[in-house]
Amino acid sequence: MLNGFYKRLLPSPPAIDFVSNNGKKLFLEAYQNGTMQGFNSLISHFQTQTELTYCGLASLTMVLNSLAIDPGRKWKGPWRWFDESMLDYCGPLETVRANGISFEKLASLGHCAGAKVEAFRASNITIDDFRKYVTKCSTTDDCHIIASYHRAALKQTAGGHYSPIGGYHAGKDMVLILDVARFKYPPHWVPLSLIWEGMNYTVGSTGKTRGFLLVSRPHKEPNMLK
Amino acid sequence: MLNGFYKRLLPSPPAIDFVSNNGKKLFLEAYQNGTMQGFNSLISHFQTQTELTYCGLASLTMVLNSLAIDPGRKWKGPWRWFDESMLDYCGPLETVRANGISFEKLASLGHCAGAKVEAFRASNITIDDFRKYVTKCSTTDDCHIIASYHRAALKQTAGGHYSPIGGYHAGKDMVLILDVARFKYPPHWVPLSLIWEGMNYTVGSTGKTRGFLLVSRPHKEPNMLK
Repeated sequence: MLNGFYKRLLPSPPAIDFVSNNGKKLFLEAYQNGTMQGFNSLISHFQTQTELTYCGLASLTMVLNSLAIDPGRKWKGPWRWFDESMLDYCGPLETVRANGISFEKLASLGHCAGAKVEAFRASNITIDDFRKYVTKCSTTDDCHIIASYHRAALKQTAGGHYSPIGGYHAGKDMVLILDVARFKYPPHWVPLSLIWEGMNYTVGSTGKTRGFLLVSRPHKEPNMLK
Repeated sequence: MLNGFYKRLLPSPPAIDFVSNNGKKLFLEAYQNGTMQGFNSLISHFQTQTELTYCGLASLTMVLNSLAIDPGRKWKGPWRWFDESMLDYCGPLETVRANGISFEKLASLGHCAGAKVEAFRASNITIDDFRKYVTKCSTTDDCHIIASYHRAALKQTAGGHYSPIGGYHAGKDMVLILDVARFKYPPHWVPLSLIWEGMNYTVGSTGKTRGFLLVSRPHKEPNMLK
């Protein structure tokens, strides 16, 4: 017997594997209906979290690269490009490697990296508000959503997790989770109400609920535009 | 002025940016026509080459993970998953880091990692054969193609490069290149005839043409199936 795990079986229902026939059908319907407008930019930057505690950093890196935010410093050779290892704006990454990252700190990191970040705790808004933001970001290239949720709501193993939302199927009211733990679960469709339920789990250390980050390019004055 | 480059302008024509309106239109048409069947599995594993010389390793890693080939050893924690750094089946990766990787060696690596790999030099087949294989792999999840080409054919800067083909638009006879140098160019559609032209450039050190690798899961005898 080999040691370790080769992926985990995606609990389905409630999730629908993006690579399955049903997942492809949902994808095509949503694409035709115009609620996958942000998909192309986000999927072009899909990545695996490089450390088991880097789900937040990987999600943010995907979104920053998707929004074409210039990090202003080099990654490799002459190229400026966001990599998780470069998200040290708020201090060294050792604590993230040890413990993961808090909701507030991830929002700060996005802001310091040059994005506009609006943070929403599930306790402070309604599911209708959440659906409104999902609809907004799925119908443009202008913003992306990083969900902070507890996997138990999706019957998945392990606890708190971050991943971007890659699109929306309005007819079925389902979102496409681009899970950065790709070694574990493939991208999957889940009912919007369930990811919302996952956002409503409280974080033990703070007593606050999870939620989501709405990330976009910062507004520039006309004279700042090139 | 910042040092370095923030991406390169995609020469268009001949390429069409996947994230542009025209790129999305081509994508939807191809998807509806059933020649993006391999897209979902491949895009679910899209990644950036982690070294400037790792285009071959990144392309192979994408394809191995897409085909759900179990590496039989752990990546991080308990998880078995292909990472470029694990493609050392044919020896240490120092020479790849220094010089990139040859067509034969990349094929060997794929084979040693557990895949079935068929290598085609452009000089040995016809464009019609190439189109046949592209059609085959774009209409199933069973195989993926890694193109080995010279960027000059696409009016792109720098020389030889590897990247997987993510799909096919039969009506326009265009392929979707999932460029692993994502810090440089986004995924892009190009005429199949031009990537074929890029495969026909000779490699200086060998005098042989480039070509493509057709990668699939190895055939298993019925009694080997679980």
